[in-house]
Amino acid sequence: MPCSWINGKLVDESKAVLSIFDRSYLYGEGIFETLRCYGGKPAFLDRHYQRLRQNSRRLQIPLTLSEKDLRFAIGRLLKKNKMKEAVVRATVSLQGATFGVEIPKDPKVNLTLFCRPAALDPRLFEAGVKVFCSQNLINDSPGVADIKATSYLTKMLARAEAAKAGAYETLLKNAKGNWAEGSRTNLFVVLDRTVITPPLSEGILNGITRQVVLEILKEKKMAHREAPITDLMLNNAEEIFLTGSTSEVMPVGEVIGMIIRKTGPFPLAKTLRLEYRRTLGI
Amino acid sequence: MPCSWINGKLVDESKAVLSIFDRSYLYGEGIFETLRCYGGKPAFLDRHYQRLRQNSRRLQIPLTLSEKDLRFAIGRLLKKNKMKEAVVRATVSLQGATFGVEIPKDPKVNLTLFCRPAALDPRLFEAGVKVFCSQNLINDSPGVADIKATSYLTKMLARAEAAKAGAYETLLKNAKGNWAEGSRTNLFVVLDRTVITPPLSEGILNGITRQVVLEILKEKKMAHREAPITDLMLNNAEEIFLTGSTSEVMPVGEVIGMIIRKTGPFPLAKTLRLEYRRTLGI
Repeated sequence: MPCSWINGKLVDESKAVLSIFDRSYLYGEGIFETLRCYGGKPAFLDRHYQRLRQNSRRLQIPLTLSEKDLRFAIGRLLKKNKMKEAVVRATVSLQGATFGVEIPKDPKVNLTLFCRPAALDPRLFEAGVKVFCSQNLINDSPGVADIKATSYLTKMLARAEAAKAGAYETLLKNAKGNWAEGSRTNLFVVLDRTVITPPLSEGILNGITRQVVLEILKEKKMAHREAPITDLMLNNAEEIFLTGSTSEVMPVGEVIGMIIRKTGPFPLAKTLRLEYRRTLGI
Repeated sequence: MPCSWINGKLVDESKAVLSIFDRSYLYGEGIFETLRCYGGKPAFLDRHYQRLRQNSRRLQIPLTLSEKDLRFAIGRLLKKNKMKEAVVRATVSLQGATFGVEIPKDPKVNLTLFCRPAALDPRLFEAGVKVFCSQNLINDSPGVADIKATSYLTKMLARAEAAKAGAYETLLKNAKGNWAEGSRTNLFVVLDRTVITPPLSEGILNGITRQVVLEILKEKKMAHREAPITDLMLNNAEEIFLTGSTSEVMPVGEVIGMIIRKTGPFPLAKTLRLEYRRTLGI
């Protein structure tokens, strides 16, 4: 039986429990990070920790552990579970709630970690994935969508749409009608050989792989810009790809739902994935 | 120490725990109801149960207990805690999640209940409350806002705004720019002696007190309609009131934030509260 890490202790997953007065359980008032680990080490832990800290300030959840503490905890967890190629979920929330907003004067911070083996089929990076363009769901509002919070219902409904359509991911529009992001990935398109991704002002998560890919594009002096992505752009893009901690740089081979088309080959997406993995030392 | 009800058992609140693999904790994928109990009995339990059932279908959470079971469980909880005037929170979620959407084949349903004394100052119904009109937050999208789900971050941020402003409630606009609802209440205004509340198509929760008030207006042949509520309507309304299980029919005496004004007296709100309480047999 695998182990979880609960508030500093490694415990059997069957015994990994929290109070029902945890605010993430009651209100989706929690923050989290999903960390891809390579060779037993979490990638870009510094950036994940920085985002966790920023979000903890926004939700007024005191972050009681340092970046070093988090690195140590993840190391222990992976070692205990004998995993090297893994995905770790870290969740931080406050305990102490009944009805309403009031937080107790001396609240308890809950921090939990669990891991699973990284299990993405490497052939997907060659063939490209199928994505479903949602016709009904709208991405969360700006001011909420940019917080990596456990109030994840919109994204879970989007994932259910993807699963139903046999797709890898669902793309969501924002309230302005532009394509914003996927349920767990950021969106990029290539038009006239220029790589385009929505700016943060479109109401999206500030994805860490997105940050790294933008830095690579800048460093390599490859044409790119941040701009809203319209239906027409998604329809006409030479390439479409998704970025995320577990998806790395994932080419899209087929689009279904509101827009229907095939795409490929994916020279830029493949180049960027190689460069991304190079920054990881792989 | 008060007791909670966890999956059929009354347990001391300090021991009321759930697995960290509960999907409400990890993803805000849970549904809930807040039930006001008068004289030890939950008001409109049939309607709350019906909504819970509808939401359970939408989130594919099997509802393993009947309306009768829920009534019995609430009765036991209140009796054990020696409460008669109380608020009960019921939460239903699935356990079994790691990353992504996949639900295990034989998932465990978690159902928890806890209660607190009903503690609203009755003078508020006379004086009216202060409400804050949010300038930054937008209500959740239609397709999500109408599910009473534990992905409650928008509403919690709204409550934090209210608390900061010393207000009872925060009103949120929808993406179309109309006033939609509060963080825990539905919104009504009175213009030209006609009671107006946003239709469900504005992306709001189908509040049970809202339903009952609309039925009273219809039965008493009082002028009313469902229509979007604009800035101008909120600014010029003769009366403004909120409805909710714990707020009953709550008059608004002062509006702050994006719109600033005082209102009162509240003859229609007071009449409707009396009628509402009459349907409860109080």
